[in-house]
Amino acid sequence: MNHYCYFNGQILPEDAIRFQINDLGILRGYSVFDYLRTYNFTPFLLQDYLIRFENSVKSIDLSLPISKEEIAEKIDELLFWRADKTQDVGIRLLMTGGYSENGFNAPENPNFLIRIEDLRPKPSTDYEQGVKVITHQYQRELPEIKTTNYSRALIIQKAMQVQKAVDALYHLDGNISECTRNNFFLFKGNTLVTPKNNILRGITRKTVLELASNKFQVEERDIYLEELKEATEAFKTGTNTRVLPVIQIDELKINKKQVGPNTKALMQMFADFAHESTLMD
Amino acid sequence: MNHYCYFNGQILPEDAIRFQINDLGILRGYSVFDYLRTYNFTPFLLQDYLIRFENSVKSIDLSLPISKEEIAEKIDELLFWRADKTQDVGIRLLMTGGYSENGFNAPENPNFLIRIEDLRPKPSTDYEQGVKVITHQYQRELPEIKTTNYSRALIIQKAMQVQKAVDALYHLDGNISECTRNNFFLFKGNTLVTPKNNILRGITRKTVLELASNKFQVEERDIYLEELKEATEAFKTGTNTRVLPVIQIDELKINKKQVGPNTKALMQMFADFAHESTLMD
Repeated sequence: MNHYCYFNGQILPEDAIRFQINDLGILRGYSVFDYLRTYNFTPFLLQDYLIRFENSVKSIDLSLPISKEEIAEKIDELLFWRADKTQDVGIRLLMTGGYSENGFNAPENPNFLIRIEDLRPKPSTDYEQGVKVITHQYQRELPEIKTTNYSRALIIQKAMQVQKAVDALYHLDGNISECTRNNFFLFKGNTLVTPKNNILRGITRKTVLELASNKFQVEERDIYLEELKEATEAFKTGTNTRVLPVIQIDELKINKKQVGPNTKALMQMFADFAHESTLMD
Repeated sequence: MNHYCYFNGQILPEDAIRFQINDLGILRGYSVFDYLRTYNFTPFLLQDYLIRFENSVKSIDLSLPISKEEIAEKIDELLFWRADKTQDVGIRLLMTGGYSENGFNAPENPNFLIRIEDLRPKPSTDYEQGVKVITHQYQRELPEIKTTNYSRALIIQKAMQVQKAVDALYHLDGNISECTRNNFFLFKGNTLVTPKNNILRGITRKTVLELASNKFQVEERDIYLEELKEATEAFKTGTNTRVLPVIQIDELKINKKQVGPNTKALMQMFADFAHESTLMD
């Protein structure tokens, strides 16, 4: 669907928006983004996402052209203008370094886009049956910032398809960090473990850790590949993914390829929280 | 100057070219480029650049939409159409993953651009007096491929300006690789030394090594920061930079901040080679 977007001060239909080729995002990968979604037609954990986006912007030495409060207002306006108000949507924030005269020096004005996107839910069978991931030696640059640099994830897309995997789990010399666009968790019995370092500070991750701490022991620490053998359950999280069970990693089968009870409990707890917290807004 | 560009089969003025926001270069940094220039209005070492560009394209699992021979023809056509035929120009090749319906899966058709650019020569005083660089702990991802991921170089731009440096020399735990967009060399007496690993395979670098081997001993190997103290001369190379003397690295002065005779000799040898090889074309 061709939603409206906010672009540098204007509300425009998406297909009216174009980037000139001297944009530093295109020429130099100098850009950051964030992505949130609505539940009950209301942005979920908006303040968390806005704070993270502002941090990403500052981390590449740019600054927001409008305040976080104004961004929230523009999002409301875009949600008001969307054609189909019966569907929840994704909301992408994107800032590039702007149009550079010489293709390198950052100009005064960045390009700032807010884009409403159709949600692209994963098949419900993925949640019911769990998914396979492969492992891949790689560490994202600047992992705590959401730069647009996801080229490795796209480069290994075909390898994932060939191996019937939906994602790759990155590790550096065996030290696990994250999936291509998701955080990773495992259970060892009733202890929930997730990598602490070199990861995106996922907001779904944070929410899951908070919810889990009421019911499970929680550990944030280094995890090495060999520890995967001891996992009794595994899952990955993300804004679009929510809580998605992982039942195979390369050739290693987790819990005999059955979605485990603790993962199911967290899936439900997260769904309930997302629903209730947006109803309250 | 608003030059003509080639974009997905068409020759268009630059300001008529726009990227849609669902381009995988914009959304995901999924793109590669290359940059060459003319001397005597003739592309310099065109075949080397086309081969490197094709390798970059293949490395991110894409393929050229037109052959290298056709790219050469399009470049000729663009050079014919440029308004001012008295100026040498830069030529940028850029390929992005294309317009993706879901913002992640690579579509059939990449976006392929050839852009003629005004050259932006560095001040002649830089060549006469040499320049300062700072050191910076960093290693480019996929250094041998020209992905558009140069965000670190832009993030540290202000730090370079504050320190009156024109560039940064990257190292990983003291092991030197390259400058932000240039290869790095030093002389120890009449021995020319340059990093061998984790660098862009620069075509100016290769040319300089070939030219230097007639006159100097040449070593391609690991260089550590502490070895910089023993450098009698230093310089950096790039398509736009050519051979640019470096006379200060952080607080370390090289050759008492004088441009040394071996660097001057290579500057002249490179200029002569560029001139003569394009005249012969």
